[in-house]
Amino acid sequence: MYLPLFILSLLVSLYPASAGDFCVADLNLPDGPAGYSCKSPAKVTADDFVYHGLAAAGNTSNLIKAAVTPAFSAQFPGVNGLGISIARLDIAVGGVIPMHTHPGGSEILVVIQGQICAGFVSSANSVYIKTLNRGDVMVFPQGLLHFQINSGKSPAIAFVSFSDPSPGLQITDFALFANSLPTEIVTTTTFLDKATVKKLKGVLGGTN
Amino acid sequence: MYLPLFILSLLVSLYPASAGDFCVADLNLPDGPAGYSCKSPAKVTADDFVYHGLAAAGNTSNLIKAAVTPAFSAQFPGVNGLGISIARLDIAVGGVIPMHTHPGGSEILVVIQGQICAGFVSSANSVYIKTLNRGDVMVFPQGLLHFQINSGKSPAIAFVSFSDPSPGLQITDFALFANSLPTEIVTTTTFLDKATVKKLKGVLGGTN
Amino acid sequence: MYLPLFILSLLVSLYPASAGDFCVADLNLPDGPAGYSCKSPAKVTADDFVYHGLAAAGNTSNLIKAAVTPAFSAQFPGVNGLGISIARLDIAVGGVIPMHTHPGGSEILVVIQGQICAGFVSSANSVYIKTLNRGDVMVFPQGLLHFQINSGKSPAIAFVSFSDPSPGLQITDFALFANSLPTEIVTTTTFLDKATVKKLKGVLGGTN
Amino acid sequence: MYLPLFILSLLVSLYPASAGDFCVADLNLPDGPAGYSCKSPAKVTADDFVYHGLAAAGNTSNLIKAAVTPAFSAQFPGVNGLGISIARLDIAVGGVIPMHTHPGGSEILVVIQGQICAGFVSSANSVYIKTLNRGDVMVFPQGLLHFQINSGKSPAIAFVSFSDPSPGLQITDFALFANSLPTEIVTTTTFLDKATVKKLKGVLGGTN
Amino acid sequence: MYLPLFILSLLVSLYPASAGDFCVADLNLPDGPAGYSCKSPAKVTADDFVYHGLAAAGNTSNLIKAAVTPAFSAQFPGVNGLGISIARLDIAVGGVIPMHTHPGGSEILVVIQGQICAGFVSSANSVYIKTLNRGDVMVFPQGLLHFQINSGKSPAIAFVSFSDPSPGLQITDFALFANSLPTEIVTTTTFLDKATVKKLKGVLGGTN
Amino acid sequence: MYLPLFILSLLVSLYPASAGDFCVADLNLPDGPAGYSCKSPAKVTADDFVYHGLAAAGNTSNLIKAAVTPAFSAQFPGVNGLGISIARLDIAVGGVIPMHTHPGGSEILVVIQGQICAGFVSSANSVYIKTLNRGDVMVFPQGLLHFQINSGKSPAIAFVSFSDPSPGLQITDFALFANSLPTEIVTTTTFLDKATVKKLKGVLGGTN
Repeated sequence: MYLPLFILSLLVSLYPASAGDFCVADLNLPDGPAGYSCKSPAKVTADDFVYHGLAAAGNTSNLIKAAVTPAFSAQFPGVNGLGISIARLDIAVGGVIPMHTHPGGSEILVVIQGQICAGFVSSANSVYIKTLNRGDVMVFPQGLLHFQINSGKSPAIAFVSFSDPSPGLQITDFALFANSLPTEIVTTTTFLDKATVKKLKGVLGGTN
Repeated sequence: MYLPLFILSLLVSLYPASAGDFCVADLNLPDGPAGYSCKSPAKVTADDFVYHGLAAAGNTSNLIKAAVTPAFSAQFPGVNGLGISIARLDIAVGGVIPMHTHPGGSEILVVIQGQICAGFVSSANSVYIKTLNRGDVMVFPQGLLHFQINSGKSPAIAFVSFSDPSPGLQITDFALFANSLPTEIVTTTTFLDKATVKKLKGVLGGTN
Repeated sequence: MYLPLFILSLLVSLYPASAGDFCVADLNLPDGPAGYSCKSPAKVTADDFVYHGLAAAGNTSNLIKAAVTPAFSAQFPGVNGLGISIARLDIAVGGVIPMHTHPGGSEILVVIQGQICAGFVSSANSVYIKTLNRGDVMVFPQGLLHFQINSGKSPAIAFVSFSDPSPGLQITDFALFANSLPTEIVTTTTFLDKATVKKLKGVLGGTN
Repeated sequence: MYLPLFILSLLVSLYPASAGDFCVADLNLPDGPAGYSCKSPAKVTADDFVYHGLAAAGNTSNLIKAAVTPAFSAQFPGVNGLGISIARLDIAVGGVIPMHTHPGGSEILVVIQGQICAGFVSSANSVYIKTLNRGDVMVFPQGLLHFQINSGKSPAIAFVSFSDPSPGLQITDFALFANSLPTEIVTTTTFLDKATVKKLKGVLGGTN
Repeated sequence: MYLPLFILSLLVSLYPASAGDFCVADLNLPDGPAGYSCKSPAKVTADDFVYHGLAAAGNTSNLIKAAVTPAFSAQFPGVNGLGISIARLDIAVGGVIPMHTHPGGSEILVVIQGQICAGFVSSANSVYIKTLNRGDVMVFPQGLLHFQINSGKSPAIAFVSFSDPSPGLQITDFALFANSLPTEIVTTTTFLDKATVKKLKGVLGGTN
Repeated sequence: MYLPLFILSLLVSLYPASAGDFCVADLNLPDGPAGYSCKSPAKVTADDFVYHGLAAAGNTSNLIKAAVTPAFSAQFPGVNGLGISIARLDIAVGGVIPMHTHPGGSEILVVIQGQICAGFVSSANSVYIKTLNRGDVMVFPQGLLHFQINSGKSPAIAFVSFSDPSPGLQITDFALFANSLPTEIVTTTTFLDKATVKKLKGVLGGTN
């Protein structure tokens, strides 16, 4: 029971190429509330769905001794519109990913190497902390403050995936001290004293 | 051209009462990812859709001189499942709603009385601050750090609505200092020194 | 433990400015099913998130003695993509916001001044009506017919927020009588007699 | 290259039966904002996904000479959670489906027999009307007022599908006249005169 | 109580034409994750919401003796953004719609003529099959393998609606054998032998 | 500027514990379209957000020489409602994850060890294949057929995350041959000959 090609092809000839299957971001077109505009399907190749940028370790030669390397829509256009993205965490001995949130999505972390102490705080101010070893998985609910600390004696690596192709990242200290947010507003809204704010602004390059 | 009741009623007799129109929360039943279970439509009355709890000013006789009075699903079961909720802000002279986020939704604020200086910080650490007067509206995108300060000489009142019936509220200082989050973890993940952390933990009732 | 700016900045250098945090509408670009295209983040300022158009009372010198002043995406581009919007209702003594629906979202109303009798009708034709005073809140589920009447002896003001940045507004009488919908179709689909339809079409500027 | 059953089965033994594939409604359990609770997958059979109730014509022996027969979640539990539902329209000669909305979803109609004049009105009060013949398809955007009239000389049949398993149905005349909505409120919010309202309330069984 | 047109029109003058009501696809503009860009509302007419392409039978003069005629966004731009679409199935005697999935949405089928044996398989590999007659409805949950066979003695016609304006269609045999997917990969990932794969590739026009 | 605990606590006393932050699945309660019911927040601990089941390699001592170990809602209740989940792939030398789909979500894969040849086929039957090495990432759009083959000379490990806490898994061969789907229906809907179907049913434990 064989089907001649020339006839069967009629069945699918009305379907446009891949419409709706995926929407590889064209970063040169306008974006919208749901993400970037789509690259023409005709120009999409397998390379659009693969990202090599997480293969190498991030540079942890900094004082937090850590690096976050994202593969979000802006770096990895293939995830645009697919509700998922990923990033690599490298945390050297003594390193830390400071307290932060992702405004747009939940995060799931798997430890690839080393030991990580991770935790988050809920709206009710409850604290959820665990020490994770190789292969352990932890999930961080959307928008809540969380952190990751290398609690071991060797460099730690983790991959973190997000329920959003562009989840955002707001590091609390950077939001408070690494910009022009006036010192008076910081002290008023955080209960920190002026000297502390000024000191951290100095370190993080903040002004005002 | 009149329709006898007994006949016309056949047209709608197959429709269950209000199914899908609304889902007033029954707080005694289990909740799920989309919200609380629904109260039986037969028991729902107009009272379920009205909330009187925002009519009176919140108590601002505290050191932040401010109060947030929510009408979220847990207080106002009528909003369950409807993608919207509201709260009242009372900010006395010199008062402040400290730096916080809502993990689950965007916020729109309208000033009813007084003057409020409000702002938020983006993932890119950009700062967006404005002084708002009576009738002014400001929107705060989902999950980003923001604050409201009474910048006037009289008590300020505002109503804030959210794109979620249970948007959550995470006040940064409470998340960091008002619980059992270990001091060492706070210092490591915020760059604050131990003395500052200990002091704020003392004030806010935190331990460890 | 301080972090030199030049090193720490490496951590965030890979993140594009604010991508995903917000999407202020650029009304000159095409819109899509999820809303308008985004203004370039580099051009976004605090002003984009603030709207002054609701500070002044709407003009109620008309026969319904009421005004709806919206701050939807088209008027207030900052709400685009954020799942929220707001409007101001001014209802003079004896005024009314006629029976209407919002096809795209639920509504939450808070009375700022005066007294309002408000209500909605469910799919099951059940009626939910309440008289609301200053500070009272009422929620109207998505897509259902509802109304607001000034039931007091002084002008009433309310703010209404929506679970959609562009919720739409369909006033039943305008939909039926203020356009070219043929009289015969109106009578056939509403059971109203021809004279009534013709009369209202005349008043509301409808034709056919 | 064959795989012994006893070994291969290990691969899938960890997967719970059908979790997430579907959620046939158990109408005896509480419902929530996203729909009804799920029947145990172990008890689900093919019969749960099939509905025979649209095979027979609805009874059009009424004055509107029409019938709507729904296969929504409440009638056809298999569609619960699947974002789709269907209904059958029977419209006898001279019959009409009166002006109505579906608060929860968009509608797509296909004419199976006869001729139907259908239309909807937008928020901008623009009118979109077409006469449809057998096999013609028309789409009605979510929440907008629309109608269907048999414009032919033989009975008309159509199937209408919805983007929601429980889209609701609000017939404007029923919402206004077939319940206890006070006459004074109807006249005030619709501009109809008292006599017209009283007359239609009489016909449709409304009170007050 | 009549309202002069020139005054009442003030009430709605602030609302942009139809914004948010619908988004008829402009196939010449870029698409995004949520669908195509919108045609200007000013240029939209009733014709945009009607599709005649399903009125005629599809051509079943092929070896599967069947045809799928879609009215998705690409063919019927009016459904763009509305969460719904439709297609027509024509299955001649002995014909079959081969095993396939729709990656983007659930499907509801109604038999218009003839008899169809339809079924789907769940993630748990459970089989749900039913023989459907005229007027019977069956629902197929999103993303699961399913099929339709003419099990009667006359041509069968069905309409299938989807919970997505662009649900996609992946016919398993076409995905495996009608393209350049290497024979070795097909045998490795399907357990089929090389001869079978080569034979089907020959029939369906596949290479490698 | 310190705040006495007893006063500040008033500010948050109205907020229910963590409502809306997360919804750890209680597998003993009914599930719904959006996932499982929530475990009481008071009983939730850090352990609910951590999963150890992916730390050990899956058993690849089978003929496909591969194992999929999921951490979906049913195994890892902490991800319920969070829009994310994860699984571990172990593929021995010569092993393969057969052609399959996830009906409910997109997948992102990162190679931890070894070399994997992975690919997917679009609705347009286009083929997207790449050979991935350690640290490489590939994304597979929702609902499309895809596979992973160990193309290296050592065991391969990968973590795959999904945009859904319960994405489902439908292995094409299992769906076709490992159940009671009648042989005649398989041959009719796949173009495979009866002998091939019978042989694979024998291997995979299918009947009929």
